[in-house]
Amino acid sequence: MTEKLTDSERVEQIDPLLANGWAMTDGRDAIHKTFVFKNFVEAFGFMTRAAIWAEKWNHHPEWSNVYKSVDVTLTTHDADGLSALDAKLGAKLDTLAGG
Amino acid sequence: MTEKLTDSERVEQIDPLLANGWAMTDGRDAIHKTFVFKNFVEAFGFMTRAAIWAEKWNHHPEWSNVYKSVDVTLTTHDADGLSALDAKLGAKLDTLAGG
Repeated sequence: MTEKLTDSERVEQIDPLLANGWAMTDGRDAIHKTFVFKNFVEAFGFMTRAAIWAEKWNHHPEWSNVYKSVDVTLTTHDADGLSALDAKLGAKLDTLAGG
Repeated sequence: MTEKLTDSERVEQIDPLLANGWAMTDGRDAIHKTFVFKNFVEAFGFMTRAAIWAEKWNHHPEWSNVYKSVDVTLTTHDADGLSALDAKLGAKLDTLAGG
């Protein structure tokens, strides 16, 4: 799970995220997305749900929060780039955010 | 509560924070501190406790988390700088972090 994705795996696992608001991060083999909610409670509620999944899967986002906005960056330090765990967590975050 | 602190108020309210690991932020009238915990559960547990106080006081941090580290910046947008709310929240965060 923590090996860097191959080119064909990227097409299969990362491209659907890029089509759903994620973008490649400049200068890093990482993806990022900004989630915007109605207010702080909604934003932090999302982070709380995500945190439990991140810990369960032992794969944690780099993220920041300013009021109702949450910026998330996903990459796998052990793999020095994107792994299947990033694809899995990214898809989960989209689900948790409601779309 | 949301008026920018005067010089004498800064000495009284902000200086104790600066003596406890907070620092002025370059280019902004804001303070920041990095809290480091044992692991992600401890770090996010801190954020969760802090989030409830932030919402209760309607004063929210700008913050980021990478695994066991939490970077916090405090300022008051309405006041265009540091207010008493930042001093109050900063002190609370120190208490919640255990020191």
